[in-house]
Amino acid sequence: MQFHSEQRFDDGVLERQFTLGDINGILWTPPVAAPAPLILIGHPGGLDRMHSRLAARARHSAAQGFAGITIELPGAGDRPRLPAVDEARADLQRAVRAGEPVHDEIVERLVLPLVDQAVPEWRITLDAVQQQPEIADGPVGFAGGVLAIGVRMALVEPRVAAAVLFAGSYVPRVMFAEARQVTIPLHVLLQWDDEGNDRQLALDLFDAFGSKEKTLHANMGGHTGVPAFEADSGNRFFQRHLG
Amino acid sequence: MQFHSEQRFDDGVLERQFTLGDINGILWTPPVAAPAPLILIGHPGGLDRMHSRLAARARHSAAQGFAGITIELPGAGDRPRLPAVDEARADLQRAVRAGEPVHDEIVERLVLPLVDQAVPEWRITLDAVQQQPEIADGPVGFAGGVLAIGVRMALVEPRVAAAVLFAGSYVPRVMFAEARQVTIPLHVLLQWDDEGNDRQLALDLFDAFGSKEKTLHANMGGHTGVPAFEADSGNRFFQRHLG
Repeated sequence: MQFHSEQRFDDGVLERQFTLGDINGILWTPPVAAPAPLILIGHPGGLDRMHSRLAARARHSAAQGFAGITIELPGAGDRPRLPAVDEARADLQRAVRAGEPVHDEIVERLVLPLVDQAVPEWRITLDAVQQQPEIADGPVGFAGGVLAIGVRMALVEPRVAAAVLFAGSYVPRVMFAEARQVTIPLHVLLQWDDEGNDRQLALDLFDAFGSKEKTLHANMGGHTGVPAFEADSGNRFFQRHLG
Repeated sequence: MQFHSEQRFDDGVLERQFTLGDINGILWTPPVAAPAPLILIGHPGGLDRMHSRLAARARHSAAQGFAGITIELPGAGDRPRLPAVDEARADLQRAVRAGEPVHDEIVERLVLPLVDQAVPEWRITLDAVQQQPEIADGPVGFAGGVLAIGVRMALVEPRVAAAVLFAGSYVPRVMFAEARQVTIPLHVLLQWDDEGNDRQLALDLFDAFGSKEKTLHANMGGHTGVPAFEADSGNRFFQRHLG
């Protein structure tokens, strides 16, 4: 894990860009002496574009003592393109624009390769970052999108003890079998009027999760309109389960 | 408004039983000097049976400076029975036990008379209690069930500025037109596996509300299994809108 630039914010949070093999990402650590519990911060890809929003989320969590880390999505940012994924994304956007149903075949072509590549990268990153002295060993949280990546992480990575999932992207029906096996506490955010999302699919997925403790928070507005007070809700959820 | 018995809890909250004409109820006031903003606490009827749960909710809100008031439902407790409502309730329970669909005709016979009688009683109670020096004038909250009573109150009583609605009882489809006219901020609680409730109807009603700010919190478990952390969520909602 090689850090190559850093800045410290007014609130004392240290932000560092890093590379780890082919992976690049950002680590935020709170200004505390003890090793901080970690939240893996998911996003839809394009770290440069997402940077300020992700930093705001990380600093909000850091105020409650959490470190945060994010990595670039496969095929996004400066990483090598994934032409088949790009093609599937274009097909999906075409269907949504045309008001047509989004066939699961498209969703599978878009999402499964991302999940299959991103999840091992998250796990390698987790191995590496937990060797840093300022990061606590033990359970971590996952927060954000891509929804299907969160589902797979919740299922296969035992260190992920609780997840705030953003139901703002498609999950292929074939992954519902994985969702049914998830047992960790979940806090699912749904934007009720998300124009690029399938509300019924999100509700079906929430229903499918095997977790005994799962909460759905649905709010009005589009994809990027999650109310500010939900950041506090997420923090409280992680404090209950990682505290 | 005639108070006829009172007790003070360890936390300083004063609980007083009252009657107001044909209406009986309970008022909880926090141990503060300034007039307290008020929350109207709804419930499914049967004050004696509900007392300890309602007192717990009221004292939780009182810790944040809110007064709380509840009244007995028409036809419940020691109040005169409403035979037509009792008959409709029996019909509904029979349908649910038999696993049959609950026809809207039954829901209308059960819910509309309750709404038509309870809402004016709530408004008379509100007039009276806001004349008490320890209760603040101005906006109030509504919290709890019966869901349809909350919908009507949110629509017709201008002092109700925000509502935490418990989506745990049936609302006749004819009232969806009222729901569409509701514009106050709403915080809707849904128990995902509520055996005596219709989840899809609750989701449709949430969708129908005209409010720009509305949040749905869905949790696992049955009718009475609302997680303890939701009490804090409700308090924070009221602090944002009545604070």
